Amino acid sequence: MSNIDKWRKRAAQIVGQENLITENSELIPFSHDEYALDTFNRMPLAVVKPATEEEIQEIVRLCRELKVPLTVRGGGTGLSGGCVPAEQGVVLSLERLNSVVDADPANHIITVQAGVALKRLYEEVDKMGLYFPPHPGDEGAFIGGAVATNAGGARAVKYGTIRRFVLGLQVVWADGRLSNLGGKFIKSSSGYNLTDLIIGSEGTLGIITRVTLSLLPRPGAISTLIAPFDSVRQAIETVPDILHRGILPTAVEFVQHEVISCAEQLLKKSWPTHDGSASLLFILDGRSEDDLLAQAEELAELLESGGALDVLIAESPERQEEILALRSMIYEALREGTVELFDICVPRSEIAGHVEFVKEVEERYKIQLPTYGHAGDGNVHTHYMRKAISNGLLGAEVTGWQQLHQQVREELFADAAARGGVISGEHGIGRVKREYLVNNLGAVNVEVMRLIKHALDSENILNPGKVVQQY
Amino acid sequence: MSNIDKWRKRAAQIVGQENLITENSELIPFSHDEYALDTFNRMPLAVVKPATEEEIQEIVRLCRELKVPLTVRGGGTGLSGGCVPAEQGVVLSLERLNSVVDADPANHIITVQAGVALKRLYEEVDKMGLYFPPHPGDEGAFIGGAVATNAGGARAVKYGTIRRFVLGLQVVWADGRLSNLGGKFIKSSSGYNLTDLIIGSEGTLGIITRVTLSLLPRPGAISTLIAPFDSVRQAIETVPDILHRGILPTAVEFVQHEVISCAEQLLKKSWPTHDGSASLLFILDGRSEDDLLAQAEELAELLESGGALDVLIAESPERQEEILALRSMIYEALREGTVELFDICVPRSEIAGHVEFVKEVEERYKIQLPTYGHAGDGNVHTHYMRKAISNGLLGAEVTGWQQLHQQVREELFADAAARGGVISGEHGIGRVKREYLVNNLGAVNVEVMRLIKHALDSENILNPGKVVQQY
Repeated sequence: MSNIDKWRKRAAQIVGQENLITENSELIPFSHDEYALDTFNRMPLAVVKPATEEEIQEIVRLCRELKVPLTVRGGGTGLSGGCVPAEQGVVLSLERLNSVVDADPANHIITVQAGVALKRLYEEVDKMGLYFPPHPGDEGAFIGGAVATNAGGARAVKYGTIRRFVLGLQVVWADGRLSNLGGKFIKSSSGYNLTDLIIGSEGTLGIITRVTLSLLPRPGAISTLIAPFDSVRQAIETVPDILHRGILPTAVEFVQHEVISCAEQLLKKSWPTHDGSASLLFILDGRSEDDLLAQAEELAELLESGGALDVLIAESPERQEEILALRSMIYEALREGTVELFDICVPRSEIAGHVEFVKEVEERYKIQLPTYGHAGDGNVHTHYMRKAISNGLLGAEVTGWQQLHQQVREELFADAAARGGVISGEHGIGRVKREYLVNNLGAVNVEVMRLIKHALDSENILNPGKVVQQY
Repeated sequence: MSNIDKWRKRAAQIVGQENLITENSELIPFSHDEYALDTFNRMPLAVVKPATEEEIQEIVRLCRELKVPLTVRGGGTGLSGGCVPAEQGVVLSLERLNSVVDADPANHIITVQAGVALKRLYEEVDKMGLYFPPHPGDEGAFIGGAVATNAGGARAVKYGTIRRFVLGLQVVWADGRLSNLGGKFIKSSSGYNLTDLIIGSEGTLGIITRVTLSLLPRPGAISTLIAPFDSVRQAIETVPDILHRGILPTAVEFVQHEVISCAEQLLKKSWPTHDGSASLLFILDGRSEDDLLAQAEELAELLESGGALDVLIAESPERQEEILALRSMIYEALREGTVELFDICVPRSEIAGHVEFVKEVEERYKIQLPTYGHAGDGNVHTHYMRKAISNGLLGAEVTGWQQLHQQVREELFADAAARGGVISGEHGIGRVKREYLVNNLGAVNVEVMRLIKHALDSENILNPGKVVQQY
């Protein structure tokens, strides 16, 4: 019996035959994530769907014994090929690990299994009357995957990325042992911070089985502001001054009007303004209506003195939702023609410069690179397009995009590094960006990461080939 | 020539003879930190004071070559023996590495060398017109040491511990290579989070040479409130409700009146109230006087409906300072009679139970255990006293404190673990608590820490014997 046949037989004993997929046609969805190209896609030799942490431990021990590489998969919404299986590898799907373990409103804490989808998590937190600020775009993502990539989203300006909300993790290590890391406390100086090491390690150091999150009280009031500007630089450059004045919006997004037009076409709705060439979008929250109003007034003044052509406040929840939908549907609108969505993060003061550099690259290569993103935290999204955009609609395929893709990527990544930034602010390195990490972080940093990977998974069982190339 | 003689000769060549201490009398201050007992004190064979990161690299390479253990020392204000040298070891003092590398008000960021004292850091941040919230008690601590222990302080309720403010580090690894970790960006999903691994690792994984910190705008207004209660439990139990209502104080401290009397005696000042047996102390900050007033009014209402006997607001900055001085001088007032200051951290809902347990232990062992701490974040400070306290004054030595010390420690630590807490919330494990870490975190977690230590410092050069016992 071949190794993989042995594996399949014993895996079926662990999870039950009905929770083991081996049919080629059923394996296809597990061969890729949402990265647009098929460059790194690979069929798993099997997919296993454990129901408990103990079953995960057994599966990991089995993989280690039979030297079968194991890749964990959450919602499959990643953009870096992080959950694509390794050669001769299998996939462990978290979809059956979807229970709320402990809802603890007194401590403002919830513990869920890793396979809980974000949509469900928001509902559970809502039932508790509390608030979980991080909001990566896709609510189909699982919390385990969101933690494994340290997912961000727009609300990081005020609240930080998901990392800040993770108080504890349950992890299965590469040898099948299980740890509870952290806990229901907000301060610890008790040994190395393994929790934060696992967050963002993309399934290469341990399998996240449970996540303990700190929650916040719901804001008393929320409001959305839009301010159009003549240029994207002028828009972005007002932001530091606003933050400096102590106004801390939940989100500050910049959009160029030629980019938002794609979402307008898709949703058949209109962005509140077409003055100028770019807008800033602010989400403000406050303890009360009064607190919010005071912030909004001060913000409007600062925007006007910073050159805003107008300041529009969305009063009704419906109008707020419409505006946020337009912003968040840019990705959806461009998706069909997108080859790669970058998520470079630079220091706040470098955003405008980086966006201008992207424009320059766009003109030089004649490839459209629609760009928008998080003006409050420096996380810039650029789409590498294989289709032309005209009046908000995707047109014909651009000839030569295949040949230019790598060059453009290298130029953008080099610019990020030169500005003291990183090549991934929220999507992760996965397989797609692995070769670029050394240039970004330097050889010593990557070497230290490899040492840690080797120390915790000497047999290279857990998601090998991702983040860093292993020994 | 012996190994250490060789080391001294070459170290003198690296830093200059005047920056190398070898005289016994001058080495004494480097044989201990502020832990009260001399159990773990040890004389270093030499102290070296490098002036640059490059000199640190050379010293580390030298230590590795000659197998001389190296312990880094900051301000020496630790309480866990973390900077006490290893057997046949030397000390590297950071005192000459005290420059501001980069003050960047536009990005709200400062980068300093690790030997900058906290007092100086606050001054530099003040010059920038900005605010660095973390405030561990002793301003003589160096930023490098504060980061190495993930120091906390009272302001963690709203702002978190120092970890949340560290955007980047420069680190010299055990092989003498240097890394820049993180940077001037607030989002990253680019490889393993080495920054947070180094924070809290107490000099055992790498030597922190530079720290990049994010800063905040100064709050527009600050106020201090005191509310006395009949019992400490009643006081503590109002806190979750307050936080739940969206009032997020900078600090929430609980003090028992019999404990504060020691600080009253020392400072010859009076705590604002002697009603009841315990007080809550709140520091509130707000964007404006109006914002602050709204918070204070809502807080006062909640306190009164929670059973507060009174709510006192300190209006003037002078009176605010006096009250905070009284709170922060408790440690100083008890110090002379203190054997050990614990810093257990438990979930917020477990604070009252833990404090009552301490009381019960106090009565059972007839050892005074004055307790106070951070009611907002669960970090509880208990003094193990060798002297009796009476009417706020330290009296005679208690017979038998030596025999009971370990038992009491074990009882408190076991209670912390049983409540889902940790044995150190902010002081670190160092040497003093090392043997207790396994019981707190479990064997697997400690084993993983040892694997990481071994991977990054296979020769055990960096601060061996601290945090975890090495291979």
